[in-house]
Amino acid sequence: MKQDLLEYILHLADDALILGHRNSEWTGHGPILEQDIALSNIALDMLGQARNFYQYAANIQLKGSTEDSFAYHRNEREFKNALLVELPNGDWGKTILRQFLFSAYQFLLYGRLKATQDSTIAAIAEKSLKEVTYHLRWSSEWVIRLGDGTEQSRQRMQIALDQLWPYSGELFIPTSYEIIAANAGYGTDITLLKDPWINTVNSILQEATLFVPENSWMQEGGKTGTHSEHLGYLLAEMQYLQRSYPNSEW
Amino acid sequence: MKQDLLEYILHLADDALILGHRNSEWTGHGPILEQDIALSNIALDMLGQARNFYQYAANIQLKGSTEDSFAYHRNEREFKNALLVELPNGDWGKTILRQFLFSAYQFLLYGRLKATQDSTIAAIAEKSLKEVTYHLRWSSEWVIRLGDGTEQSRQRMQIALDQLWPYSGELFIPTSYEIIAANAGYGTDITLLKDPWINTVNSILQEATLFVPENSWMQEGGKTGTHSEHLGYLLAEMQYLQRSYPNSEW
Repeated sequence: MKQDLLEYILHLADDALILGHRNSEWTGHGPILEQDIALSNIALDMLGQARNFYQYAANIQLKGSTEDSFAYHRNEREFKNALLVELPNGDWGKTILRQFLFSAYQFLLYGRLKATQDSTIAAIAEKSLKEVTYHLRWSSEWVIRLGDGTEQSRQRMQIALDQLWPYSGELFIPTSYEIIAANAGYGTDITLLKDPWINTVNSILQEATLFVPENSWMQEGGKTGTHSEHLGYLLAEMQYLQRSYPNSEW
Repeated sequence: MKQDLLEYILHLADDALILGHRNSEWTGHGPILEQDIALSNIALDMLGQARNFYQYAANIQLKGSTEDSFAYHRNEREFKNALLVELPNGDWGKTILRQFLFSAYQFLLYGRLKATQDSTIAAIAEKSLKEVTYHLRWSSEWVIRLGDGTEQSRQRMQIALDQLWPYSGELFIPTSYEIIAANAGYGTDITLLKDPWINTVNSILQEATLFVPENSWMQEGGKTGTHSEHLGYLLAEMQYLQRSYPNSEW
Protein backbone atom coordinates (compact mmCIF):
# COMPACT_ATOMS: atom_id res chain seq x y z
CA MET A 1 0.00 0.00 0.00
CA LYS A 2 2.72 2.42 1.04
CA GLN A 3 4.89 0.98 -1.75
CA ASP A 4 2.16 1.78 -4.30
CA LEU A 5 1.86 5.34 -3.07
CA LEU A 6 5.63 5.70 -3.16
CA GLU A 7 5.83 4.48 -6.74
CA TYR A 8 3.10 6.84 -7.78
CA ILE A 9 4.81 9.85 -6.21
CA LEU A 10 8.14 8.89 -7.73
CA HIS A 11 6.49 8.64 -11.13
CA LEU A 12 5.14 12.19 -10.78
CA ALA A 13 8.53 13.41 -9.59
CA ASP A 14 10.56 11.63 -12.26
CA ASP A 15 8.53 13.07 -15.13
CA ALA A 16 9.23 16.56 -13.79
CA LEU A 17 12.89 15.95 -12.98
CA ILE A 18 13.82 14.41 -16.30
CA LEU A 19 12.03 16.97 -18.45
CA GLY A 20 13.38 19.75 -16.24
CA HIS A 21 16.86 18.36 -16.79
CA ARG A 22 16.37 18.14 -20.55
CA ASN A 23 15.17 21.74 -20.69
CA SER A 24 18.05 22.90 -18.56
CA GLU A 25 20.42 21.57 -21.21
CA TRP A 26 19.34 24.58 -23.27
CA THR A 27 20.43 27.12 -20.67
CA GLY A 28 23.04 29.27 -22.29
CA HIS A 29 22.46 27.66 -25.69
CA GLY A 30 19.09 29.02 -26.71
CA PRO A 31 18.66 30.89 -29.98
CA ILE A 32 17.42 34.06 -28.30
CA LEU A 33 18.50 35.33 -24.90
CA GLU A 34 14.94 36.05 -23.79
CA GLN A 35 13.65 32.60 -24.72
CA ASP A 36 16.73 30.90 -23.36
CA ILE A 37 15.83 32.43 -20.01
CA ALA A 38 12.14 31.55 -20.40
CA LEU A 39 12.91 27.88 -21.02
CA SER A 40 15.40 27.87 -18.14
CA ASN A 41 12.70 29.20 -15.87
CA ILE A 42 10.39 26.43 -16.99
CA ALA A 43 13.18 23.95 -16.21
CA LEU A 44 13.52 25.38 -12.71
CA ASP A 45 9.76 25.18 -12.16
CA MET A 46 9.86 21.50 -13.06
CA LEU A 47 12.89 20.78 -10.89
CA GLY A 48 11.01 22.50 -8.07
CA GLN A 49 7.99 20.26 -8.64
CA ALA A 50 10.26 17.21 -8.61
CA ARG A 51 11.79 18.33 -5.31
CA ASN A 52 8.38 18.66 -3.71
CA PHE A 53 7.35 15.18 -4.76
CA TYR A 54 10.70 13.65 -3.75
CA GLN A 55 10.48 15.28 -0.34
CA TYR A 56 7.06 13.77 0.13
CA ALA A 57 8.35 10.38 -0.99
CA ALA A 58 11.23 10.65 1.48
CA ASN A 59 8.77 11.45 4.26
CA ILE A 60 6.69 8.37 3.68
CA GLN A 61 9.51 5.94 3.00
CA LEU A 62 11.25 6.34 6.37
CA LYS A 63 14.36 4.47 5.26
CA GLY A 64 16.85 7.28 5.21
CA SER A 65 15.91 8.33 1.68
CA THR A 66 16.15 12.00 0.82
CA GLU A 67 15.11 14.07 -2.15
CA ASP A 68 18.72 13.82 -3.30
CA SER A 69 19.00 10.07 -2.95
CA PHE A 70 15.90 9.66 -5.11
CA ALA A 71 17.33 11.95 -7.77
CA TYR A 72 20.96 10.88 -7.67
CA HIS A 73 21.17 7.34 -6.33
CA ARG A 74 18.57 5.41 -8.26
CA ASN A 75 19.45 3.56 -11.41
CA GLU A 76 17.76 3.65 -14.79
CA ARG A 77 15.34 0.78 -14.09
CA GLU A 78 14.08 2.53 -10.99
CA PHE A 79 13.02 5.70 -12.80
CA LYS A 80 9.34 5.85 -13.66
CA ASN A 81 9.19 8.74 -16.12
CA ALA A 82 7.43 8.41 -19.45
CA LEU A 83 9.66 7.87 -22.47
CA LEU A 84 8.53 11.19 -23.94
CA VAL A 85 10.42 13.27 -21.40
CA GLU A 86 13.73 11.43 -21.69
CA LEU A 87 14.11 11.79 -25.46
CA PRO A 88 16.99 14.04 -26.52
CA ASN A 89 16.04 17.65 -27.12
CA GLY A 90 16.65 17.79 -30.84
CA ASP A 91 16.37 21.31 -32.20
CA TRP A 92 14.64 24.22 -30.52
CA GLY A 93 11.33 23.49 -32.20
CA LYS A 94 11.29 19.86 -31.15
CA THR A 95 12.10 20.85 -27.57
CA ILE A 96 9.22 23.31 -27.56
CA LEU A 97 6.83 20.83 -29.14
CA ARG A 98 7.65 18.16 -26.56
CA GLN A 99 7.12 20.72 -23.81
CA PHE A 100 3.76 21.60 -25.32
CA LEU A 101 2.60 17.97 -25.55
CA PHE A 102 3.70 17.32 -22.00
CA SER A 103 2.42 20.56 -20.49
CA ALA A 104 -0.99 19.95 -22.04
CA TYR A 105 -1.02 16.58 -20.27
CA GLN A 106 0.37 17.91 -16.99
CA PHE A 107 -2.17 20.73 -17.01
CA LEU A 108 -5.03 18.22 -17.09
CA LEU A 109 -3.34 15.86 -14.64
CA TYR A 110 -2.61 18.48 -11.98
CA GLY A 111 -6.05 19.96 -12.51
CA ARG A 112 -7.44 16.66 -11.28
CA LEU A 113 -4.80 15.91 -8.66
CA LYS A 114 -5.45 19.18 -6.88
CA ALA A 115 -8.76 17.62 -5.80
CA THR A 116 -7.26 14.30 -4.75
CA GLN A 117 -7.77 12.89 -1.25
CA ASP A 118 -4.05 13.00 -0.49
CA SER A 119 -3.59 16.51 0.82
CA THR A 120 0.14 16.69 0.05
CA ILE A 121 -0.26 15.61 -3.56
CA ALA A 122 -3.20 17.99 -3.85
CA ALA A 123 -1.18 20.90 -2.48
CA ILE A 124 1.77 20.27 -4.79
CA ALA A 125 -0.56 19.92 -7.78
CA GLU A 126 -2.40 23.12 -6.96
CA LYS A 127 0.80 25.10 -6.48
CA SER A 128 2.34 23.67 -9.65
CA LEU A 129 -0.76 24.25 -11.74
CA LYS A 130 -0.06 27.97 -11.92
CA GLU A 131 3.37 27.26 -13.35
CA VAL A 132 2.10 24.64 -15.76
CA THR A 133 -0.59 27.00 -17.03
CA TYR A 134 2.18 29.36 -18.05
CA HIS A 135 4.28 26.55 -19.57
CA LEU A 136 1.32 25.51 -21.68
CA ARG A 137 0.60 29.03 -22.89
CA TRP A 138 4.25 29.77 -23.64
CA SER A 139 4.83 26.52 -25.55
CA SER A 140 1.51 26.82 -27.41
CA GLU A 141 2.47 30.25 -28.70
CA TRP A 142 5.82 28.94 -29.87
CA VAL A 143 4.31 25.90 -31.58
CA ILE A 144 1.99 28.18 -33.54
CA ARG A 145 4.73 30.64 -34.33
CA LEU A 146 7.11 27.97 -35.64
CA GLY A 147 4.49 25.75 -37.28
CA ASP A 148 2.72 28.60 -39.01
CA GLY A 149 6.04 30.31 -39.75
CA THR A 150 8.40 29.91 -42.68
CA GLU A 151 8.23 26.87 -44.91
CA GLN A 152 11.45 25.60 -43.35
CA SER A 153 10.23 26.03 -39.79
CA ARG A 154 6.92 24.35 -40.64
CA GLN A 155 8.72 21.35 -42.13
CA ARG A 156 10.97 20.98 -39.13
CA MET A 157 8.02 21.15 -36.76
CA GLN A 158 6.15 18.52 -38.75
CA ILE A 159 9.17 16.22 -38.59
CA ALA A 160 9.40 16.81 -34.86
CA LEU A 161 5.71 16.01 -34.44
CA ASP A 162 6.07 12.80 -36.45
CA GLN A 163 8.94 11.78 -34.17
CA LEU A 164 7.34 12.72 -30.87
CA TRP A 165 3.80 11.56 -31.48
CA PRO A 166 4.46 7.83 -30.93
CA TYR A 167 5.57 8.71 -27.40
CA SER A 168 2.41 10.58 -26.47
CA GLY A 169 0.22 7.50 -25.99
CA GLU A 170 2.10 6.25 -22.93
CA LEU A 171 0.92 9.26 -20.96
CA PHE A 172 -2.63 7.88 -20.98
CA ILE A 173 -1.97 4.15 -20.51
CA PRO A 174 -2.16 3.53 -16.79
CA THR A 175 0.45 1.41 -15.04
CA SER A 176 -0.56 -0.75 -12.10
CA TYR A 177 0.51 1.93 -9.62
CA GLU A 178 -1.61 4.51 -11.44
CA ILE A 179 -4.65 2.24 -11.43
CA ILE A 180 -4.17 1.62 -7.70
CA ALA A 181 -3.70 5.35 -7.15
CA ALA A 182 -6.93 6.15 -8.96
CA ASN A 183 -8.88 3.48 -7.09
CA ALA A 184 -7.44 4.44 -3.71
CA GLY A 185 -8.34 8.07 -4.27
CA TYR A 186 -4.87 9.69 -4.20
CA GLY A 187 -4.46 9.53 -7.98
CA THR A 188 -6.80 9.97 -10.89
CA ASP A 189 -8.00 7.94 -13.86
CA ILE A 190 -5.61 9.13 -16.56
CA THR A 191 -7.56 7.48 -19.36
CA LEU A 192 -10.11 10.25 -18.84
CA LEU A 193 -7.47 12.85 -19.68
CA LYS A 194 -6.95 11.66 -23.22
CA ASP A 195 -9.97 13.21 -24.92
CA PRO A 196 -9.53 16.68 -23.47
CA TRP A 197 -5.80 16.41 -24.24
CA ILE A 198 -6.52 15.55 -27.87
CA ASN A 199 -8.87 18.52 -28.08
CA THR A 200 -6.30 20.96 -26.71
CA VAL A 201 -3.51 19.58 -28.83
CA ASN A 202 -5.55 19.46 -32.02
CA SER A 203 -6.70 23.04 -31.73
CA ILE A 204 -3.12 24.32 -31.36
CA LEU A 205 -1.71 22.04 -34.05
CA GLN A 206 -4.39 23.16 -36.49
CA GLU A 207 -3.51 26.77 -35.87
CA ALA A 208 0.13 25.78 -36.37
CA THR A 209 -0.80 24.10 -39.72
CA LEU A 210 0.63 20.79 -38.48
CA PHE A 211 -0.85 17.34 -38.96
CA VAL A 212 -1.09 14.54 -36.43
CA PRO A 213 0.42 11.33 -37.83
CA GLU A 214 -2.13 8.62 -38.51
CA ASN A 215 -2.10 5.05 -37.22
CA SER A 216 1.06 5.59 -35.28
CA TRP A 217 2.50 2.74 -33.22
CA MET A 218 2.70 3.91 -29.61
CA GLN A 219 5.87 3.36 -27.58
CA GLU A 220 5.63 2.58 -23.91
CA GLY A 221 7.63 1.20 -21.02
CA GLY A 222 9.27 4.17 -19.35
CA LYS A 223 6.71 4.44 -16.59
CA THR A 224 7.50 0.88 -15.51
CA GLY A 225 11.27 1.25 -15.80
CA THR A 226 11.92 0.06 -19.35
CA HIS A 227 13.69 3.06 -20.79
CA SER A 228 15.35 4.08 -24.02
CA GLU A 229 19.14 4.23 -24.09
CA HIS A 230 18.85 8.01 -23.77
CA LEU A 231 17.94 7.92 -20.09
CA GLY A 232 21.14 6.07 -19.26
CA TYR A 233 23.26 8.84 -20.77
CA LEU A 234 21.17 11.50 -19.08
CA LEU A 235 21.55 9.86 -15.67
CA ALA A 236 25.25 9.28 -16.17
CA GLU A 237 25.66 12.99 -16.67
CA MET A 238 23.22 14.09 -13.99
CA GLN A 239 24.43 11.67 -11.34
CA TYR A 240 28.14 11.86 -12.08
CA LEU A 241 29.04 14.05 -9.14
CA GLN A 242 27.08 12.09 -6.56
CA ARG A 243 28.28 8.76 -7.90
CA SER A 244 31.89 9.89 -7.86
CA TYR A 245 31.76 11.44 -4.42
CA PRO A 246 28.97 9.63 -2.57
CA ASN A 247 27.17 11.71 0.03
CA SER A 248 29.62 14.52 -0.47
CA GLU A 249 28.42 18.06 -0.33
CA TRP A 250 30.56 19.04 -3.30
CA MET B 1 31.69 59.68 -26.51
CA LYS B 2 28.85 57.37 -27.43
CA GLN B 3 31.45 54.69 -28.17
CA ASP B 4 32.85 55.05 -24.66
CA LEU B 5 29.42 54.69 -23.12
CA LEU B 6 28.73 51.67 -25.31
CA GLU B 7 31.95 49.96 -24.26
CA TYR B 8 31.18 50.60 -20.63
CA ILE B 9 27.70 49.13 -20.88
CA LEU B 10 28.97 46.11 -22.78
CA HIS B 11 31.58 45.56 -20.08
CA LEU B 12 28.87 45.50 -17.42
CA ALA B 13 26.74 43.18 -19.54
CA ASP B 14 29.56 40.81 -20.45
CA ASP B 15 30.59 40.21 -16.85
CA ALA B 16 27.02 39.23 -16.05
CA LEU B 17 26.49 37.11 -19.19
CA ILE B 18 29.69 35.11 -18.91
CA LEU B 19 29.38 34.36 -15.21
CA GLY B 20 25.68 33.60 -15.69
CA HIS B 21 26.64 31.16 -18.42
CA ARG B 22 29.30 29.51 -16.27
CA ASN B 23 26.85 29.08 -13.41
CA SER B 24 24.23 27.69 -15.74
CA GLU B 25 26.65 24.90 -16.63
CA TRP B 26 25.87 23.50 -13.19
CA THR B 27 22.13 23.23 -13.83
CA GLY B 28 21.23 19.59 -13.47
CA HIS B 29 24.72 18.72 -12.23
CA GLY B 30 24.81 20.22 -8.76
CA PRO B 31 25.58 18.06 -5.76
CA ILE B 32 22.27 18.80 -4.05
CA LEU B 33 18.97 19.42 -5.81
CA GLU B 34 18.14 22.45 -3.69
CA GLN B 35 21.49 24.13 -4.28
CA ASP B 36 21.51 23.19 -7.92
CA ILE B 37 18.30 25.18 -8.25
CA ALA B 38 19.67 28.05 -6.14
CA LEU B 39 22.73 28.42 -8.36
CA SER B 40 20.56 28.15 -11.48
CA ASN B 41 18.42 30.98 -10.17
CA ILE B 42 21.54 33.08 -9.64
CA ALA B 43 22.53 32.28 -13.22
CA LEU B 44 19.15 33.48 -14.47
CA ASP B 45 19.43 36.68 -12.44
CA MET B 46 22.76 37.39 -14.09
CA LEU B 47 21.50 36.58 -17.57
CA GLY B 48 18.63 38.97 -16.86
CA GLN B 49 21.08 41.72 -15.87
CA ALA B 50 23.03 41.09 -19.05
CA ARG B 51 19.88 41.39 -21.13
CA ASN B 52 19.01 44.71 -19.56
CA PHE B 53 22.44 46.14 -20.31
CA TYR B 54 22.51 44.72 -23.85
CA GLN B 55 19.10 46.21 -24.57
CA TYR B 56 20.36 49.59 -23.44
CA ALA B 57 23.47 49.17 -25.58
CA ALA B 58 21.30 48.30 -28.58
CA ASN B 59 19.22 51.42 -27.99
CA ILE B 60 22.18 53.75 -28.07
CA GLN B 61 24.09 52.09 -30.88
CA LEU B 62 21.42 52.51 -33.56
CA LYS B 63 23.14 50.19 -36.03
CA GLY B 64 20.72 47.32 -36.04
CA SER B 65 22.32 45.71 -33.02
CA THR B 66 20.10 43.75 -30.66
CA GLU B 67 20.61 42.16 -27.29
CA ASP B 68 21.07 38.89 -29.16
CA SER B 69 23.63 40.19 -31.62
CA PHE B 70 25.72 41.46 -28.71
CA ALA B 71 25.53 38.10 -26.98
CA TYR B 72 25.82 35.81 -29.96
CA HIS B 73 27.59 37.63 -32.78
CA ARG B 74 30.62 39.21 -31.19
CA ASN B 75 33.95 37.44 -31.15
CA GLU B 76 36.26 36.80 -28.26
CA ARG B 77 38.28 40.02 -28.65
CA GLU B 78 35.11 42.08 -28.46
CA PHE B 79 34.05 40.74 -25.09
CA LYS B 80 34.95 42.97 -22.16
CA ASN B 81 34.39 40.72 -19.19
CA ALA B 82 37.02 40.30 -16.49
CA LEU B 83 39.11 37.13 -16.68
CA LEU B 84 37.72 35.99 -13.32
CA VAL B 85 34.27 35.26 -14.71
CA GLU B 86 35.42 33.24 -17.73
CA LEU B 87 37.55 30.72 -15.81
CA PRO B 88 36.17 27.18 -15.85
CA ASN B 89 33.97 26.29 -12.91
CA GLY B 90 36.20 23.71 -11.29
CA ASP B 91 34.49 21.93 -8.42
CA TRP B 92 31.42 23.14 -6.57
CA GLY B 93 33.47 24.95 -3.95
CA LYS B 94 35.50 26.85 -6.52
CA THR B 95 32.34 27.88 -8.35
CA ILE B 96 30.87 29.18 -5.11
CA LEU B 97 34.06 30.98 -4.14
CA ARG B 98 34.28 32.73 -7.51
CA GLN B 99 30.65 33.76 -7.17
CA PHE B 100 31.40 35.14 -3.71
CA LEU B 101 34.42 37.17 -4.87
CA PHE B 102 32.46 38.55 -7.81
CA SER B 103 29.22 39.21 -5.94
CA ALA B 104 31.11 41.13 -3.26
CA TYR B 105 32.51 43.31 -6.06
CA GLN B 106 29.21 43.65 -7.91
CA PHE B 107 27.41 44.53 -4.68
CA LEU B 108 29.72 47.52 -4.19
CA LEU B 109 29.68 48.44 -7.88
CA TYR B 110 25.90 48.45 -8.27
CA GLY B 111 25.59 50.23 -4.93
CA ARG B 112 27.45 53.12 -6.53
CA LEU B 113 25.95 52.84 -10.00
CA LYS B 114 22.42 53.18 -8.68
CA ALA B 115 23.33 56.82 -7.98
CA THR B 116 24.94 57.45 -11.36
CA GLN B 117 23.80 60.29 -13.62
CA ASP B 118 22.73 57.87 -16.36
CA SER B 119 19.19 57.01 -15.39
CA THR B 120 19.09 53.71 -17.31
CA ILE B 121 22.29 52.39 -15.77
CA ALA B 122 21.07 53.61 -12.38
CA ALA B 123 17.73 51.82 -12.78
CA ILE B 124 19.33 48.53 -13.85
CA ALA B 125 21.83 48.75 -10.97
CA GLU B 126 19.14 49.45 -8.42
CA LYS B 127 16.92 46.62 -9.64
CA SER B 128 19.86 44.20 -9.77
CA LEU B 129 21.17 45.15 -6.37
CA LYS B 130 18.41 43.22 -4.65
CA GLU B 131 19.43 40.10 -6.53
CA VAL B 132 23.13 40.64 -5.90
CA THR B 133 22.51 41.12 -2.19
CA TYR B 134 21.04 37.63 -2.14
CA HIS B 135 23.87 36.19 -4.27
CA LEU B 136 26.41 37.62 -1.85
CA ARG B 137 24.64 36.24 1.20
CA TRP B 138 24.12 32.82 -0.33
CA SER B 139 27.71 32.47 -1.54
CA SER B 140 29.12 33.83 1.76
CA GLU B 141 27.25 31.19 3.70
CA TRP B 142 28.57 28.46 1.42
CA VAL B 143 32.16 29.72 1.59
CA ILE B 144 32.01 29.58 5.38
CA ARG B 145 30.32 26.20 5.40
CA LEU B 146 32.87 24.63 3.05
CA GLY B 147 35.93 26.48 4.35
CA ASP B 148 35.15 25.85 7.99
CA GLY B 149 33.91 22.35 7.18
CA THR B 150 35.81 19.09 6.95
CA GLU B 151 39.58 19.04 6.52
CA GLN B 152 39.11 17.93 2.91
CA SER B 153 36.62 20.66 2.10
CA ARG B 154 38.86 23.28 3.73
CA GLN B 155 41.86 22.16 1.67
CA ARG B 156 39.90 22.27 -1.54
CA MET B 157 38.61 25.74 -0.78
CA GLN B 158 42.12 26.98 0.00
CA ILE B 159 43.37 25.58 -3.32
CA ALA B 160 40.46 27.29 -5.08
CA LEU B 161 41.27 30.57 -3.35
CA ASP B 162 44.94 30.32 -4.33
CA GLN B 163 43.86 29.78 -7.94
CA LEU B 164 41.22 32.49 -8.10
CA TRP B 165 42.91 35.23 -6.14
CA PRO B 166 45.28 36.34 -8.93
CA TYR B 167 42.19 37.17 -11.00
CA SER B 168 40.59 39.41 -8.41
CA GLY B 169 42.87 42.39 -8.95
CA GLU B 170 41.58 43.14 -12.44
CA LEU B 171 38.18 44.05 -11.03
CA PHE B 172 39.69 47.20 -9.50
CA ILE B 173 42.10 48.28 -12.23
CA PRO B 174 40.18 50.72 -14.42
CA THR B 175 40.31 50.48 -18.19
CA SER B 176 40.16 53.63 -20.27
CA TYR B 177 36.40 53.26 -20.75
CA GLU B 178 35.91 52.91 -17.00
CA ILE B 179 38.00 56.03 -16.31
CA ILE B 180 35.99 57.97 -18.90
CA ALA B 181 32.76 56.61 -17.41
CA ALA B 182 33.76 57.73 -13.93
CA ASN B 183 34.80 61.19 -15.13
CA ALA B 184 31.71 61.65 -17.28
CA GLY B 185 29.45 60.73 -14.39
CA TYR B 186 27.75 57.62 -15.74
CA GLY B 187 30.27 55.26 -14.15
CA THR B 188 32.13 55.22 -10.87
CA ASP B 189 35.73 55.18 -9.68
CA ILE B 190 36.27 51.46 -9.17
CA THR B 191 39.57 51.95 -7.37
CA LEU B 192 37.49 53.19 -4.43
CA LEU B 193 35.72 49.82 -4.27
CA LYS B 194 38.86 47.89 -3.44
CA ASP B 195 39.19 48.66 0.28
CA PRO B 196 35.58 47.92 1.18
CA TRP B 197 35.79 44.77 -0.99
CA ILE B 198 38.89 43.59 0.88
CA ASN B 199 37.10 44.21 4.17
CA THR B 200 34.05 42.18 3.15
CA VAL B 201 36.11 39.37 1.68
CA ASN B 202 38.53 39.17 4.60
CA SER B 203 35.80 38.94 7.18
CA ILE B 204 34.15 36.01 5.40
CA LEU B 205 37.42 34.26 4.61
CA GLN B 206 38.51 34.53 8.23
CA GLU B 207 35.28 32.95 9.35
CA ALA B 208 35.89 30.26 6.72
CA THR B 209 39.44 29.70 8.10
CA LEU B 210 40.93 30.47 4.69
CA PHE B 211 44.02 32.54 3.98
CA VAL B 212 44.50 35.12 1.27
CA PRO B 213 47.63 34.33 -0.76
CA GLU B 214 50.42 36.87 -0.27
CA ASN B 215 52.23 38.80 -2.96
CA SER B 216 50.21 37.29 -5.73
CA TRP B 217 50.84 38.37 -9.32
CA MET B 218 47.59 39.81 -10.67
CA GLN B 219 46.31 38.72 -14.08
CA GLU B 220 44.54 41.24 -16.26
CA GLY B 221 43.44 41.82 -19.85
CA GLY B 222 39.92 40.46 -20.11
CA LYS B 223 38.26 43.83 -19.73
CA THR B 224 40.14 45.09 -22.80
CA GLY B 225 39.57 41.96 -24.88
CA THR B 226 42.68 39.92 -24.11
CA HIS B 227 41.14 36.72 -22.84
CA SER B 228 42.24 33.32 -21.66
CA GLU B 229 41.70 30.36 -23.98
CA HIS B 230 38.69 29.43 -21.85
CA LEU B 231 36.49 32.20 -23.24
CA GLY B 232 36.94 30.91 -26.77
CA TYR B 233 35.58 27.50 -25.82
CA LEU B 234 32.74 29.06 -23.86
CA LEU B 235 31.71 31.25 -26.80
CA ALA B 236 32.01 28.39 -29.26
CA GLU B 237 29.48 26.50 -27.18
CA MET B 238 27.23 29.45 -26.39
CA GLN B 239 27.18 30.87 -29.90
CA TYR B 240 27.06 27.60 -31.81
CA LEU B 241 23.39 27.81 -32.70
CA GLN B 242 23.42 31.40 -33.88
CA ARG B 243 26.66 30.92 -35.83
CA SER B 244 25.32 27.83 -37.55
CA TYR B 245 21.93 29.31 -38.40
CA PRO B 246 22.45 33.08 -38.55
CA ASN B 247 19.43 35.14 -37.59
CA SER B 248 17.35 32.05 -37.33
CA GLU B 249 14.73 31.78 -34.65
CA TRP B 250 15.62 28.20 -33.95
